[in-house]
Amino acid sequence: MEQVLASIITIGDELLIGQVVDTNSAWMAQELNKAGIWLKRRVAVGDNKQEIINALDDQSRDTQIILITGGLGPTADDITKPVLNNYFGGKMVVDENVLAHVKYLFEQVYRRPITDRNMKQAEVPDVCTVLHNARGSAPGMWFEKDGKVFVSLPGVPHEMKGLMTTEVLPRLQQRFTMPFISHRTLLTAGVGESYIADHIQSWEEALPAHFKLAYLPNYGMVRLRITGSGTDKAQLDKELDTEFDKLKILVKHWMVIDEDLPLNMVVGKLLKEQGKTMCTAESCTGGYIAHIITSVPGSSAYYKGSIVSYANEVKENVLKVSPQTLQTTGAVSEETVRQMVQGALVTLNTDYALATSGIMGPDGGTAEKPVGMVWVAVGNREKVVTQLFNFRFDRMRNIEMTANNSLNLLRKFIAEQG
Amino acid sequence: MEQVLASIITIGDELLIGQVVDTNSAWMAQELNKAGIWLKRRVAVGDNKQEIINALDDQSRDTQIILITGGLGPTADDITKPVLNNYFGGKMVVDENVLAHVKYLFEQVYRRPITDRNMKQAEVPDVCTVLHNARGSAPGMWFEKDGKVFVSLPGVPHEMKGLMTTEVLPRLQQRFTMPFISHRTLLTAGVGESYIADHIQSWEEALPAHFKLAYLPNYGMVRLRITGSGTDKAQLDKELDTEFDKLKILVKHWMVIDEDLPLNMVVGKLLKEQGKTMCTAESCTGGYIAHIITSVPGSSAYYKGSIVSYANEVKENVLKVSPQTLQTTGAVSEETVRQMVQGALVTLNTDYALATSGIMGPDGGTAEKPVGMVWVAVGNREKVVTQLFNFRFDRMRNIEMTANNSLNLLRKFIAEQG
Repeated sequence: MEQVLASIITIGDELLIGQVVDTNSAWMAQELNKAGIWLKRRVAVGDNKQEIINALDDQSRDTQIILITGGLGPTADDITKPVLNNYFGGKMVVDENVLAHVKYLFEQVYRRPITDRNMKQAEVPDVCTVLHNARGSAPGMWFEKDGKVFVSLPGVPHEMKGLMTTEVLPRLQQRFTMPFISHRTLLTAGVGESYIADHIQSWEEALPAHFKLAYLPNYGMVRLRITGSGTDKAQLDKELDTEFDKLKILVKHWMVIDEDLPLNMVVGKLLKEQGKTMCTAESCTGGYIAHIITSVPGSSAYYKGSIVSYANEVKENVLKVSPQTLQTTGAVSEETVRQMVQGALVTLNTDYALATSGIMGPDGGTAEKPVGMVWVAVGNREKVVTQLFNFRFDRMRNIEMTANNSLNLLRKFIAEQG
Repeated sequence: MEQVLASIITIGDELLIGQVVDTNSAWMAQELNKAGIWLKRRVAVGDNKQEIINALDDQSRDTQIILITGGLGPTADDITKPVLNNYFGGKMVVDENVLAHVKYLFEQVYRRPITDRNMKQAEVPDVCTVLHNARGSAPGMWFEKDGKVFVSLPGVPHEMKGLMTTEVLPRLQQRFTMPFISHRTLLTAGVGESYIADHIQSWEEALPAHFKLAYLPNYGMVRLRITGSGTDKAQLDKELDTEFDKLKILVKHWMVIDEDLPLNMVVGKLLKEQGKTMCTAESCTGGYIAHIITSVPGSSAYYKGSIVSYANEVKENVLKVSPQTLQTTGAVSEETVRQMVQGALVTLNTDYALATSGIMGPDGGTAEKPVGMVWVAVGNREKVVTQLFNFRFDRMRNIEMTANNSLNLLRKFIAEQG
């Protein structure tokens, strides 16, 4: 069976001047991958007719599925629809179903006056299959030419996701016969990718040709992923499991979890297993740890909340850090984060707590306490463990490094109590 | 003067299976744009020799600057360096400066044993100019061929950013003569993009040919950006200001700010002007609002902290929401968010407070209180204003919509007090 190859074309000047980060492509790539479709290439072009046509020509040369996002809005800079109509030699006609849906959205949902521009969203090329966009006014469009499938989707992420899930992926699965693609992923902490690579070199070199190993470093941790493809799913899974078991033994000293789970979910899983709760007391991370914990649906089962104590008076008044400690050792100190954990455990009434205090930059550093210096503490009512980190460089990265490393410290602490 | 065109090639299988979101390209696009270089195209390909070569051929056909990121790590899946060496007909040699830097990093900074793989990072093609990567072990590489410039950079964001800032952009500015590109951006709230487009149609149609208007909708707000290019900076800025002034008058009823500032910065600016402070009391947004406020350097001047009250007992015990209110109207209610604001003002001792409580999904909705229902309150000690929102669809989007809309409500409230 031949591999089914796809490409993604994202359209919009906003991508070329960097006004938006393209999160759509990563999501689409994941979904294609799960469906057994291999994404060969992604390309981003501006709202420019010739550039769009070139991209359609280029991508359809060596991929069977061309997914196109963006440029379907109602304003003058959105030209994807007329360009596609022209490319596939169609003419524009009003689709009555889309028209009824646009009217419904404006009258019942948005409750805004409908304009001629909005009504024009119901005009579609007569050579496409219209895909219903339940979440917005721009419909999806499915074209076929020379055995290739071209699908145009809106660039608004939740509209694109709705269309992909309900319309595009089911149709692609009907239209093509896919090989099975399967992954095994584990997460490590504590050593760098080259160190791991040396350690597992002979195993990696002996991997069968239809298997591929990837090293995915992220905030001081390294994810290892084996990808295999084949026609017999049971056989493929068996082979993958065999290699994965070998890998797990090789990296056992640094393995955090043998699943493709981010740390916030690993911590949540441990807490649910123990029937325990946690909270956070955040100074320098400013609510980011609370955010990544609560971005997991169902986190209210184990997470009670956070005291984001950006000002020292909040550390004193709400977390009961002693004024003497703040005066003598300062807010960025081992003793302060220790007291923040103890205060949070009482104030928020949980089994475990995590606290952070540091200097995230770019300003506020001193010779004694430079930018990137962070104290972290985790603990329960019996015991508090602290750790000092020295990160560098940009603010957002320091916040993310602090979040990831402190969650890993908490994970180890919770696992030891279990 | 001819426009200087650039393209970006990002390399890595992780981009094609969606394991990482490409944030590098947006940042690079912004920096190129500021430097007067127009990004024509972005393409992402896998760790595959032929794909990389095709991308180099394709992109150098119609752009003068080709920026390449990724695939420079020390492991077997990173093939960018040998492919480039081959493409430009060089041979690999050890660069003594890079070697000394790699040794320094491992001995003094990472304090990890150095491996042969790490030492190999000091091998570079003899046909490139080596660019010093102060932030990591993989050097940048600058190649020239047929008048085109090719620059290879590591994919790790803070390493790429350091190299771009200190090495690549200054060299590009020396190497090419750029036209001036300038933007004027404003933010609106309250109406959709088609409504605005109708309202400003005759002005937009009369814009000179070297000006372009973009509509950038984002979480219920629309950003409008005019971009112009020219050879005379003073003349260009004058023309842009003239058109921008006309636009500001046309959209004055919905304009939030006439700068390219996100809402978190707009609120911070207002607070600094008034010399006032704020805090947050977050239930459903789970610390996300605290995070976006504190992601701004210097936010400690006006932001004291947040009580993330994910559990009702935290609303009662820390924010002093009455147990009767929680029992009778529930946590997602106007009365609860009102009391959360009042409690936060006292507990965190600030001039203004913002509170959120809602159902973010995908679970937890009921017929009476469906997923996407959110109560928001903002206020000071004299007055509290509340608003009910009904969002839909995915959890992260609901969190972001709540954050943006509640910050806009707070912005209006603060502006009215000023």
